[in-house]
Amino acid sequence: MISQFKTLKEECYEANIQLNNLGLVIYTFGNVSAVDRGRGVFAIKPSGVPYEDLKPEDIVILDFENNVVEGKMRPSSDTKTHAYLYKNWEDIGGIAHTHATYSVAWAQAQRDIPIFGTTHADHLTADIPCAPPMKDELIAGNYEHNTGIQILDCFKEKQISHTEVQMVLLGNHGPFTWGENAAKAVYNSKVLEEVAKMAFLTRQINPEAPRLKDSLIKKHYERKHGKDAYYGQK
Amino acid sequence: MISQFKTLKEECYEANIQLNNLGLVIYTFGNVSAVDRGRGVFAIKPSGVPYEDLKPEDIVILDFENNVVEGKMRPSSDTKTHAYLYKNWEDIGGIAHTHATYSVAWAQAQRDIPIFGTTHADHLTADIPCAPPMKDELIAGNYEHNTGIQILDCFKEKQISHTEVQMVLLGNHGPFTWGENAAKAVYNSKVLEEVAKMAFLTRQINPEAPRLKDSLIKKHYERKHGKDAYYGQK
Amino acid sequence: MISQFKTLKEECYEANIQLNNLGLVIYTFGNVSAVDRGRGVFAIKPSGVPYEDLKPEDIVILDFENNVVEGKMRPSSDTKTHAYLYKNWEDIGGIAHTHATYSVAWAQAQRDIPIFGTTHADHLTADIPCAPPMKDELIAGNYEHNTGIQILDCFKEKQISHTEVQMVLLGNHGPFTWGENAAKAVYNSKVLEEVAKMAFLTRQINPEAPRLKDSLIKKHYERKHGKDAYYGQK
Amino acid sequence: MISQFKTLKEECYEANIQLNNLGLVIYTFGNVSAVDRGRGVFAIKPSGVPYEDLKPEDIVILDFENNVVEGKMRPSSDTKTHAYLYKNWEDIGGIAHTHATYSVAWAQAQRDIPIFGTTHADHLTADIPCAPPMKDELIAGNYEHNTGIQILDCFKEKQISHTEVQMVLLGNHGPFTWGENAAKAVYNSKVLEEVAKMAFLTRQINPEAPRLKDSLIKKHYERKHGKDAYYGQK
Repeated sequence: MISQFKTLKEECYEANIQLNNLGLVIYTFGNVSAVDRGRGVFAIKPSGVPYEDLKPEDIVILDFENNVVEGKMRPSSDTKTHAYLYKNWEDIGGIAHTHATYSVAWAQAQRDIPIFGTTHADHLTADIPCAPPMKDELIAGNYEHNTGIQILDCFKEKQISHTEVQMVLLGNHGPFTWGENAAKAVYNSKVLEEVAKMAFLTRQINPEAPRLKDSLIKKHYERKHGKDAYYGQK
Repeated sequence: MISQFKTLKEECYEANIQLNNLGLVIYTFGNVSAVDRGRGVFAIKPSGVPYEDLKPEDIVILDFENNVVEGKMRPSSDTKTHAYLYKNWEDIGGIAHTHATYSVAWAQAQRDIPIFGTTHADHLTADIPCAPPMKDELIAGNYEHNTGIQILDCFKEKQISHTEVQMVLLGNHGPFTWGENAAKAVYNSKVLEEVAKMAFLTRQINPEAPRLKDSLIKKHYERKHGKDAYYGQK
Repeated sequence: MISQFKTLKEECYEANIQLNNLGLVIYTFGNVSAVDRGRGVFAIKPSGVPYEDLKPEDIVILDFENNVVEGKMRPSSDTKTHAYLYKNWEDIGGIAHTHATYSVAWAQAQRDIPIFGTTHADHLTADIPCAPPMKDELIAGNYEHNTGIQILDCFKEKQISHTEVQMVLLGNHGPFTWGENAAKAVYNSKVLEEVAKMAFLTRQINPEAPRLKDSLIKKHYERKHGKDAYYGQK
Repeated sequence: MISQFKTLKEECYEANIQLNNLGLVIYTFGNVSAVDRGRGVFAIKPSGVPYEDLKPEDIVILDFENNVVEGKMRPSSDTKTHAYLYKNWEDIGGIAHTHATYSVAWAQAQRDIPIFGTTHADHLTADIPCAPPMKDELIAGNYEHNTGIQILDCFKEKQISHTEVQMVLLGNHGPFTWGENAAKAVYNSKVLEEVAKMAFLTRQINPEAPRLKDSLIKKHYERKHGKDAYYGQK
């Protein structure tokens, strides 16, 4: 049987494999999805399949109401979180979730990652937010759907934009990242892990290390993402 | 000469090689065993053989009274600990012992690993127990046999189940893990090492980091291991 | 079209690839340049190109006034810093800039790296300087050019020589290193990262660890770089 | 020209290559030597040669008075330390010196590595000694020869045996290890680095972590090295 979603599945498959190659996951931990806005569906890793065994045809296709459109396998247990984010943030094209070590450590410490340097400022101008653990009744309820709500509530409360801040830590759990496509979401997971490690070491060396000053935050973010950006090729 | 235990030896061999490939041991450190309940024997790594040199035919077969049934080499010096666990826990199929860095560090610190996040809760609902160092008369006696007793005493005292908590730290020594087969025991060693590193970093970032709350412990464990589990394929 | 700068481009290309192979950068982070003093030009990595995709012909050639002499791609966003250093330090042949983890952590902590041992003294006799963050008006101005000024000011104020101290940390940013050619600049980036990690661990083990005493600093530096040096081949 | 020391050079070459493969050195750091007691000579790495470029024929042969017996290259700058140890400790067959990260960190912290667990006790029963930095007049004098004296003085003062304790840290410098041959010396360098990392982490987790108790030290050391040892093959 020929899939109607061959390209989308391959994009999703490649991004999941990258997650493993970049050392951000072990065994079956983590998952990446990719969206097709035109058709109103997204592709996601099947649940509990080791990356070594994963094949493009295993990828599951769902609509934003979590109905399986194509695929024989059970989708990732985190699928409802992905669906909720796609439904509410119409400009994102891919989502990644990892259990990368330093990112998880900050999430378990329930701390935002302070912006300490230009590596961070090259990617976002705010501290990386850590959403507080969910209320008990939400955990007992539609947990993964509510995780999506938790992320949006966090961004609303902190008044930050998901377009600029493409990553979040879920308290006691781990990171979710997103971007214009699945590859960019994975890129953001790797950058987050690196920034998380740098921030950890910075605090160990100097517990009083100050946040980066506003002029440098602005300069580095603008030279990469501003209207007169001069980083990268045109 | 054709072995009567070819399959068992190969399962054991493969699991030992994994221990090395996963970076959990160096040189001759550590060992994995696999059991054949029907025949009342288990297979274990020979003592002091580097993983690079290990061959399936080197694996030693013993009964639960530590008598060698097949094999020319001396079995692992930790063999009696394995035998004791197999004899007392009739539902386990494999056991692994490593000197993985972060696991050993917690064992040397004589501290249980607190449950700080969902990576931990996906695998067990309790803190990872650290058994206290043995009494001097037991060390001077049948040491490796007594190590088995030490593990069972620890589980009895803490009132935890070896079916749910498939790992333990031996104070000042290192980790033992087990599971339905040798591959699962090795999986648990890798997960333990990862959780040990995450917990170490969590405490460094926030010395007051709270344990994971009960509702999240329950949710994550149940979605993977409960009767209505929806993680993985059916 | 045949390049007039084939050799220079290849030297620059090889050094950039080394940066990646040595684990000092991820994705498009960092850059290396190489100079041709006779022709008054230098070669540098194009901006935002992943190391995996980089080809020798992508390397951009510029003069010391930042005019592109050859190359179709936009040069590294840090180009003006390189040009400023080449113009002012006439005896250097290559410059490297990385976002290596431990080097960045010290830069973010805004701390000089104290000379704790002979690994450090084998390469330089001073603490590795951390230049303070730039003033706001300089950041808003010709930022990358001013970064060059910031480095020279730091060396002037601390009264250290760029010939002996071939590395600097930019506060909140990361390291720049240099040397007689591009390969030596990369070598210095790797040594700096290693020394930065050792110094971090030293302070963690003993917060009161003393600096290396003068007699040992002198001995190790002299046996490698003094007039009666006996390290290496003649 | 055919070497009279082909086998010795190859033993030395292989051990040096291992140092690099095991991640204990970068670039030209470190060196390993191997002795031929019958002929009163030892083989050592040439000074300043990168491991990637090293060939068996580059290895230099010297007598215990530091006279070159065969070889065109300049021997390691640490040669006199090796010669002094070979001359004074007649039962050792190989010596290794590294700048491995965690070993150097403890040396720079000027702290003995406490015996915290059985990984340590499997190899030696004492804390790993850190020799204090040399007096200024000895540094200015015959430095590498005096380093040998420094090591022997340290063992004399602490009343430990070089046969049992096959490793030392030189304050502010790094580790020297030895053994029955060059391969065993390298093995000891790797074990030391692993034990150094474990001890560092142990103290971070529990600053009050107690030393391993005597009964366990004895048990683990005896089962591997005692007269009734049962670790390894006969």
